[in-house]
Amino acid sequence: MRYELYYWPGIQGRGEFVRLAFEDAGVEYVDIGLLPAAQGGGAGAVSECLHAGASGQPHFAPPVLKIGEEMISQVANILLFLGPRLGLIADDAALQRRAHGLQLTLSDFVAEIHDTHHPIGTSLYYEDQRDEAQRRGKLFVQERLPKFLDYFERVLAVNAGSEAYLVGGAHSYVDLSLFQVMTGLRYAFPRAMGRLEPELPALVALVDRVGSRTRLASYLMSERRQAFNPSGIFRHYSELDG
Amino acid sequence: MRYELYYWPGIQGRGEFVRLAFEDAGVEYVDIGLLPAAQGGGAGAVSECLHAGASGQPHFAPPVLKIGEEMISQVANILLFLGPRLGLIADDAALQRRAHGLQLTLSDFVAEIHDTHHPIGTSLYYEDQRDEAQRRGKLFVQERLPKFLDYFERVLAVNAGSEAYLVGGAHSYVDLSLFQVMTGLRYAFPRAMGRLEPELPALVALVDRVGSRTRLASYLMSERRQAFNPSGIFRHYSELDG
Repeated sequence: MRYELYYWPGIQGRGEFVRLAFEDAGVEYVDIGLLPAAQGGGAGAVSECLHAGASGQPHFAPPVLKIGEEMISQVANILLFLGPRLGLIADDAALQRRAHGLQLTLSDFVAEIHDTHHPIGTSLYYEDQRDEAQRRGKLFVQERLPKFLDYFERVLAVNAGSEAYLVGGAHSYVDLSLFQVMTGLRYAFPRAMGRLEPELPALVALVDRVGSRTRLASYLMSERRQAFNPSGIFRHYSELDG
Repeated sequence: MRYELYYWPGIQGRGEFVRLAFEDAGVEYVDIGLLPAAQGGGAGAVSECLHAGASGQPHFAPPVLKIGEEMISQVANILLFLGPRLGLIADDAALQRRAHGLQLTLSDFVAEIHDTHHPIGTSLYYEDQRDEAQRRGKLFVQERLPKFLDYFERVLAVNAGSEAYLVGGAHSYVDLSLFQVMTGLRYAFPRAMGRLEPELPALVALVDRVGSRTRLASYLMSERRQAFNPSGIFRHYSELDG
């Protein structure tokens, strides 16, 4: 089984949620966007895969996962598929639905995080929507950020018998995605997170637990892990970090 | 099997995507939010279900579907579960993944449609973010609206042998969701849609086909169908309809 990930080079972006699953599971994958164009990689290959997959069917946006002739798009859809195959979720349909619901809530959270710096449109530069971003950023830090974080803190707290697991009694792909969101938020909103984290012990414990997993820690230290940067979803603009 | 839908009363909202599936399939469900409080319904019951379901686990937002002891949240997750049970998707795992990817792209589209009138924050009135809404609305109508619609038009066009089906050779729950989005867009952006629709024959054919399905047409004419209104996701503000 050859897994091919298609995602734009240059940023972690939404592709990173898929990468973390492969890396944590220790399962090989080909990161097409990061290959040289001469080897069939790069942004051109990603763009081409959106316009017509093996099935001839277009995808709206990356990431896209290719397995044989099948192409799957949307992060949560890809992780729903990969979770059981990579040993990152128990073989329990109800638990998998619960995990998927949480993953979709993380998708919503990520979209709101992105829109703090792009409240008007993705086709404009940040500098061209800075005033609106400051207004949105302020509300985000005051209202939406604590609302989402408190929610995930409660999910962890009520998941009885867990040690910072979102679902069931074991580590899963949703924990990896929440780790990525928390790590991104610490990069983008260090002041706000510094204020909020003392009230979020279960979230902090999850970040510590996930970050110390052997294969994941090794990935995070490797050259394969692209750094957070001002082109990604998580961006540090001091004026947005209320 | 008793199906209970939890969603805020007073708007179609995201609950409507779930309602259309039940109504089209002719399967009974209890719309808890629309029941009187004296019968255990209303906004209070919806709010309560978010804070602690039967499992004790919180949900971030409605809709939530309750089946026995299980509670499922997120529209796409609910439809992934209901699709095969209501006969609204073929028994084919790859096709179901494809449908789910399209449903998630519709979720993204719906979030962008919502944010045209709330670009700064959901806690503010439209009137308090009207200037930003006009700026975002203009870009939405010029760029994002055609981009999403062209995408779904292409999906329909390449799905060979179909008669306005998004996946496979038969009607599915994703067609119902796309119908709902198209109907909402015609309400919210009549001028923009009037300009774009002549170039979108497959989308128009899908709306016509779905809207003439017997049970669905009967629902749309019934008192159960709440009208589009200025509190919902799809809102008609003339100044946003570029």
